[in-house]
Amino acid sequence: MTKINENYLKLKAGYLFPEIARRVKVFSEKNPSAKIIRLGIGDVTLPIVPSVVDAMVSAAKEMGTTQGFHGYGPEQGYSFLLKAIAENDYGKLGVNIQENEIFVSDGSKCDCGNIQEIFSHDAKIAVGDPVYPVYVDTNVMAGRTGDSGSDGRYENLIYMPSTRENGFHPDFPKEAPDLIYLCYPNNPTGTVATKETLKAWVEYAKKHKSIILFDSAYEAFISEKGIPRSIYEIEGAREVAIEFRSFSKTAGFTGLRCAYIVIPNELKGFTKDGKEVSVQSLWSRRHTTKFNGVSYVTQKAAEAVYSTRGKKEIAESIAYYMANAKAIREGLSKLGYDVFGGVNAPYIWLKTPKNMSSWDFFDHLLDKAQVVGTPGSGFGPSGEGYFRLSAFGKKEDVAEAIQRISALS
Amino acid sequence: MTKINENYLKLKAGYLFPEIARRVKVFSEKNPSAKIIRLGIGDVTLPIVPSVVDAMVSAAKEMGTTQGFHGYGPEQGYSFLLKAIAENDYGKLGVNIQENEIFVSDGSKCDCGNIQEIFSHDAKIAVGDPVYPVYVDTNVMAGRTGDSGSDGRYENLIYMPSTRENGFHPDFPKEAPDLIYLCYPNNPTGTVATKETLKAWVEYAKKHKSIILFDSAYEAFISEKGIPRSIYEIEGAREVAIEFRSFSKTAGFTGLRCAYIVIPNELKGFTKDGKEVSVQSLWSRRHTTKFNGVSYVTQKAAEAVYSTRGKKEIAESIAYYMANAKAIREGLSKLGYDVFGGVNAPYIWLKTPKNMSSWDFFDHLLDKAQVVGTPGSGFGPSGEGYFRLSAFGKKEDVAEAIQRISALS
Repeated sequence: MTKINENYLKLKAGYLFPEIARRVKVFSEKNPSAKIIRLGIGDVTLPIVPSVVDAMVSAAKEMGTTQGFHGYGPEQGYSFLLKAIAENDYGKLGVNIQENEIFVSDGSKCDCGNIQEIFSHDAKIAVGDPVYPVYVDTNVMAGRTGDSGSDGRYENLIYMPSTRENGFHPDFPKEAPDLIYLCYPNNPTGTVATKETLKAWVEYAKKHKSIILFDSAYEAFISEKGIPRSIYEIEGAREVAIEFRSFSKTAGFTGLRCAYIVIPNELKGFTKDGKEVSVQSLWSRRHTTKFNGVSYVTQKAAEAVYSTRGKKEIAESIAYYMANAKAIREGLSKLGYDVFGGVNAPYIWLKTPKNMSSWDFFDHLLDKAQVVGTPGSGFGPSGEGYFRLSAFGKKEDVAEAIQRISALS
Repeated sequence: MTKINENYLKLKAGYLFPEIARRVKVFSEKNPSAKIIRLGIGDVTLPIVPSVVDAMVSAAKEMGTTQGFHGYGPEQGYSFLLKAIAENDYGKLGVNIQENEIFVSDGSKCDCGNIQEIFSHDAKIAVGDPVYPVYVDTNVMAGRTGDSGSDGRYENLIYMPSTRENGFHPDFPKEAPDLIYLCYPNNPTGTVATKETLKAWVEYAKKHKSIILFDSAYEAFISEKGIPRSIYEIEGAREVAIEFRSFSKTAGFTGLRCAYIVIPNELKGFTKDGKEVSVQSLWSRRHTTKFNGVSYVTQKAAEAVYSTRGKKEIAESIAYYMANAKAIREGLSKLGYDVFGGVNAPYIWLKTPKNMSSWDFFDHLLDKAQVVGTPGSGFGPSGEGYFRLSAFGKKEDVAEAIQRISALS
């Protein structure tokens, strides 16, 4: 009798985005002529930039020739891409990252979901609250939590509330965790960490021999000077942190799939007996055993993001989205909403008016303005009473959405 | 103190292919002018066929337009590809597979490696011996085995020897396993299962409430009539089997990354209390939580494999490789080698001469003929004394390799 992994049964049934899709579908069926504006799920809308398209076309044609055909590549990624990442994403920050410390993958969702496998089954996990649900769900599946309680929290998981009261910067947990998921610029709150904030986390991790899983998928949207783009800008972070990066939002690769993680040579885990083990060697074994590399065509596309032409084109796309962010932030602010984020991140996090619940506000906006956002409570209990709007829409749609919302007031 | 997953430390250090690469490198450095012919690792060598290149070029250009841009797609795969798979890979065999039963992924290595996650931690595993190492290693990593013994076998794993004595068809294990990995056409032995053989496995699985994980990555190489291409050609298999398929060998996608698995609606696992749970719903949750779909460009490439032009071109590539297989099989047979496979599979499995060990024969071939193959012992203890040659090389290289080997005799 084949028994299943019963941890899956602990997962809460209604995952956030399918529930949003369901409510939008019900509304559309009742109101077939309504023009719905979607600022909910964080998917990009601008086309892939010309330099990247050209790289893909050229790589695809190359694959059709005897000389240019590429079969299995190195699981970690081709050297041409590792080099471009090391130079552009780190070298320019004054951070020295070696090629062997970078692992190219087909998405940050996969990396964030898979990383926990190389750690002990009884590792203690800490997550922000609200938080990207993948961090939590993959640990539930792995059996590191108990059931979910009536307060929406899983037992045996450390939640670190990020609320208006603490400026969306969680306090250090009382019980020291083994793995700490941090995301800056933050999804969903759109807030960023200063060097001081990150420095304190690095010190905390060192003190407790914890490892920080630092998700910086949105670093390309940082507009203010002095905000760190990588945790490795902090001294000592190489000994305590893994960093996650993605081409999804930076270069619109949500439909092309490319990301990477950095695991410094110095990062160590421990056996039960206290013996040091290289975390990079564990991940390398996992990566080469369960993964076979990213498409050559996609890796050439990612390389083009770092070309002179690519950088210019990508910067224009990001400026477009950040103009949307500004319009949403300022538009809603004028209407009296309490808004956060949107300056160094493509997300605007707002307090719902009149203490409405997140889902009530979702239904209200959909019903009265035909605007779809994401209920904050979907990201965790401390997201209740908040709401996320994404800046990844079309400029015209964003303008119309603000107009419709202002007509409600 | 962050503890690691110590199961990783049980893994045998010298994984097969890196060790081959190491020995070839040493030889090359000593003999810089030697022309080495590689018939070892199962990577294809023919370029991507024109219809597939055209589809990629066109999809890449589409991604650069406002109308044609595709962001996040359905994690399971686009309907256009699911439909093409259902119709061509199953409909034509008279097998009815629904779109919701197919999950497109970025490789069979990933699927074979990840599938175990949705089953119980104490699930009892059975594998062929010799076998594709990923089945074993991913279960070691998940903690389902003990240490590896001096006989090269992991404790608490059921090995089913496939040897010349049993015609490379393992007997049913005495202790009933929960999960049974079967691979036909087989890697590495190149042998196939008849309908009767598969029927017996399906009945065995039904009787013991086991689940068969059926890897048919090489079905496109079946040349004889009457050999089943899918386990679902067997009555009742829908209730006991998951099938793995790949575009890697079929259409040369090793560098493009596309595969899929089929999980029928009827397939059930059980909770400890004996309650039935849909295996498909568990995998769907895993797939949508830890994976974000395959590149749109790659899915359009895979779709083109099923076009009229694509089918014709792919058939030519397969015929090319199978002519290689025939040349190796017949060439070595004439020289007095005992050879197996190579008729319905791109692999030739041979008994080493004079009872040489697999690695001794590897060194002998490399040293005397500059031909690289794969030592059978790398696939498991019962592979000792055998050797695998791949038919995926260039025609001229295969001819020269046979000539060189015949000069040795």
